[in-house]
Amino acid sequence: MKRSERLVAMTHFILDRPRELISLPFFSEKYDAAKSSISEDLGIINKMFQHEGIGYLESVSGASGGVKYIPAFSKEYSEEFVHQLCRRLEDPERLLPGGYLFMSDILGDPEATRSIGRLFASAFRDRDIDAIITVATKGIPLAYAVASYLNVPVVIARRDPKVTEGSTLSINYVSGSTRKIQTMVLTKRSLKEGSKVCIIDDFMKAGGTISGMKNLLHEFNAEVVGIGVLAEAEDEDEERVVDDYISLVQILNADDRKGSIEVIPGNLLNYL
Amino acid sequence: MKRSERLVAMTHFILDRPRELISLPFFSEKYDAAKSSISEDLGIINKMFQHEGIGYLESVSGASGGVKYIPAFSKEYSEEFVHQLCRRLEDPERLLPGGYLFMSDILGDPEATRSIGRLFASAFRDRDIDAIITVATKGIPLAYAVASYLNVPVVIARRDPKVTEGSTLSINYVSGSTRKIQTMVLTKRSLKEGSKVCIIDDFMKAGGTISGMKNLLHEFNAEVVGIGVLAEAEDEDEERVVDDYISLVQILNADDRKGSIEVIPGNLLNYL
Repeated sequence: MKRSERLVAMTHFILDRPRELISLPFFSEKYDAAKSSISEDLGIINKMFQHEGIGYLESVSGASGGVKYIPAFSKEYSEEFVHQLCRRLEDPERLLPGGYLFMSDILGDPEATRSIGRLFASAFRDRDIDAIITVATKGIPLAYAVASYLNVPVVIARRDPKVTEGSTLSINYVSGSTRKIQTMVLTKRSLKEGSKVCIIDDFMKAGGTISGMKNLLHEFNAEVVGIGVLAEAEDEDEERVVDDYISLVQILNADDRKGSIEVIPGNLLNYL
Repeated sequence: MKRSERLVAMTHFILDRPRELISLPFFSEKYDAAKSSISEDLGIINKMFQHEGIGYLESVSGASGGVKYIPAFSKEYSEEFVHQLCRRLEDPERLLPGGYLFMSDILGDPEATRSIGRLFASAFRDRDIDAIITVATKGIPLAYAVASYLNVPVVIARRDPKVTEGSTLSINYVSGSTRKIQTMVLTKRSLKEGSKVCIIDDFMKAGGTISGMKNLLHEFNAEVVGIGVLAEAEDEDEERVVDDYISLVQILNADDRKGSIEVIPGNLLNYL
């Protein structure tokens, strides 16, 4: 195989396996090339990934060493993406009663969710994460997008137990905005005890749902190592019950009667 | 930029944009290279994608021509993947009351869902699809995986309307297995009238849920151009109400009392 051909194959192989340690001897055998050639190839790939702003190859030295592809958007690309998203969301047509925002078109767009996932994965890249958790329904695509770049499984909490999932653990929590008592359940065998978990959701107002997920994780003796929300909005009546989180955008002054809304970047850009 | 560097950048660019037409002049300008060089590069990439069994570049000729990356797993890889999945599912520990199977670990694994998505995208590659639809919750990751390889949006029907989504259209349907009347809703602005839609779900027994989605799509004047389910299972009591579908695996003789189960490949492999 020529170098040019090998580079195409290796680029695909590496992109498909983020954060997975791949050894030089493995590549050397797979593509029937000398370790020195593979090493040069990896240098070219690393250089170009950085040039394209999609991350870098991390070298792990030692006998069991190799490289890991760490997906990370460049700050420049990230800023552009977040500002575009703000403009896209800042459309009075999106306003729904209660200060909510219609975002299903963005959440339904695989390219947008992939980019959002890569941004969160960039922000969380130095944290030790075993799994992503979200609660059904709208956070699910984001949770998968983040998980696929961090290369960890997703667990999905539900608001109702389902017969087809086996035994579950359930908690009650108070919804921050409506002050109603709600239930959240998680299938027992979906999460190992002691896991380090990152919470992902699409929207946070007072933070009741995220606080519910934190309580649920506490029951599983799991540790919350990160919280990421696509959009955070103010809640006039309630103080927020969650404070340590990363948000992509912040919704200000949403008023469906006046038809006014302002969307600004959240704190995610500070983590890149 | 050297050819070796350009090949890494182009491989990533193309993989990130399945089924999107990219013109030669675009590449030529982006990478500051002659069209003849770009053309050779695309030849190498096409050859290697086929060699790696991940699809091919389709050439579109004419003034607005260029190339499109069509993701398609090779038959060899697909067979291996499906057989492995059967063995993984054929574990009596997965049996749940009512002949259901615990699959949340597989659905929660982004690598497995991506591969399943690529398999369905391969099977549906020649159909004209505008959007993927699924019903919350467990089919969602599969729907996104298929959608990301077909490069189309996902719309999610729910069993309960949600205040944060705007006006919805709802239908009642009869669950095939339990014979209960159920409701399914879809936000009005989530799907354009006349769309060509592919239905994706994780599990099908009598087919009531899928039949419900078909009725819902009918209300949107949408056309069902494909149906894909991860696992189909027999229903002793009911005749299946859906017939034209593609399944990845087929569950036979699931009996949680005897602890017996058999899982064999579905009909998807015939479509590759």
